[in-house]
Amino acid sequence: MQPDPAAAVVLFSGGQDSTTCLAWALRQYRRVEAVTIDYGQRHRVELECARAIAERCGVPHRILPCDSFTALGGNSLVSEEVVRDGVRQDTGLPNTFVPGRNLIFLCLVAAYAWQRSIANLVTGVCQTDFSGYPDCRQTTMDALQAALRAGMDWPFTIHTPLMFLTKADSVRLAVDLDALPLLALSHTCYNGSRPPCGTCPACLLRAKGFAEAGIADPLTASPIR
Amino acid sequence: MQPDPAAAVVLFSGGQDSTTCLAWALRQYRRVEAVTIDYGQRHRVELECARAIAERCGVPHRILPCDSFTALGGNSLVSEEVVRDGVRQDTGLPNTFVPGRNLIFLCLVAAYAWQRSIANLVTGVCQTDFSGYPDCRQTTMDALQAALRAGMDWPFTIHTPLMFLTKADSVRLAVDLDALPLLALSHTCYNGSRPPCGTCPACLLRAKGFAEAGIADPLTASPIR
Repeated sequence: MQPDPAAAVVLFSGGQDSTTCLAWALRQYRRVEAVTIDYGQRHRVELECARAIAERCGVPHRILPCDSFTALGGNSLVSEEVVRDGVRQDTGLPNTFVPGRNLIFLCLVAAYAWQRSIANLVTGVCQTDFSGYPDCRQTTMDALQAALRAGMDWPFTIHTPLMFLTKADSVRLAVDLDALPLLALSHTCYNGSRPPCGTCPACLLRAKGFAEAGIADPLTASPIR
Repeated sequence: MQPDPAAAVVLFSGGQDSTTCLAWALRQYRRVEAVTIDYGQRHRVELECARAIAERCGVPHRILPCDSFTALGGNSLVSEEVVRDGVRQDTGLPNTFVPGRNLIFLCLVAAYAWQRSIANLVTGVCQTDFSGYPDCRQTTMDALQAALRAGMDWPFTIHTPLMFLTKADSVRLAVDLDALPLLALSHTCYNGSRPPCGTCPACLLRAKGFAEAGIADPLTASPIR
């Protein structure tokens, strides 16, 4: 069996970066599917955003459950504490770091793709503004791609169109892809607020990107600073 | 923070191989913990076997849920069909192949270990009798170890004491480790039968190993053939 070279699966959270990646994939591939992982995230509104954006794009969308992270606990994205910009003293990593999250998400997307004879995987991880997350780096993606290829005997390629872009570059890419209307539907806030809280690390990073690109964020319609 | 060199986490299914690995780890490390993944397997009796064996060994035991595979479907280990020795015509892989299963299980064990400052991971995957599973090969483990190290910024080592042993060698190793009484509590049958069905691929492989080693299986108390 051979993979369909014109097909791709996007790891799609419904956030700014993966929405930009979905728009990117739709330019690159004829057959695009989106997978969202429901890992018990507090910001569950992003699941609804993901569904709405996929529907707008006419893309098959699958929400896959993964209840392991809630059981593991120990991070602020699945616990009840308020998300603030903080660093854990013991590890030096952000308190929003969910160990293994992107690794497992991409393994799940790969399993889904394998079942559908698809070998192109697309994810919005970004090393430039990587917020201290080690699972967003190119070296991690290279190693994971090798593990997925070996472990499923399938010629996966992990595409990371945003890897070396700044947040401002990502915003410009979204403009080039005519994806701003989709970004209006996307979700970013770690605290699950709509309108966004504006103070969590994710909100701050998003605002910084739009400000540096000199483009108004269609989600907040905030003035250009 | 530094990992505890005297500590290890065993990916522990409650089956023959991971039980042997648990016994192996208890000889190598002062602090051993066991993690069992509840992925909705039909042979749920193995969860109880895992609990009983860990308790017998005095090892902290955690059952971590992972509901993703049931949602993905498409393999005979989480569906209702009877497990037989079969190969899928489309992929050439066994019909019991769950894509990405060992990759995801080891990522979850790694996440658990990371939270506990442990870097040694132990798994019973075996290339020699690997049944056609690509995620049991050494090349896969090497690549995955690199991905885990990069993705969690932690010096993981994946130990695979059974990798190049035949099933008969594994039985002899269990004897050397005085682990036969533990194997009497272990579970192997893919169909979840106790006593084992004796006809599924897992039962046949287990029986072959004991027979070749010339040792009676304490689970079935079958005569030496």
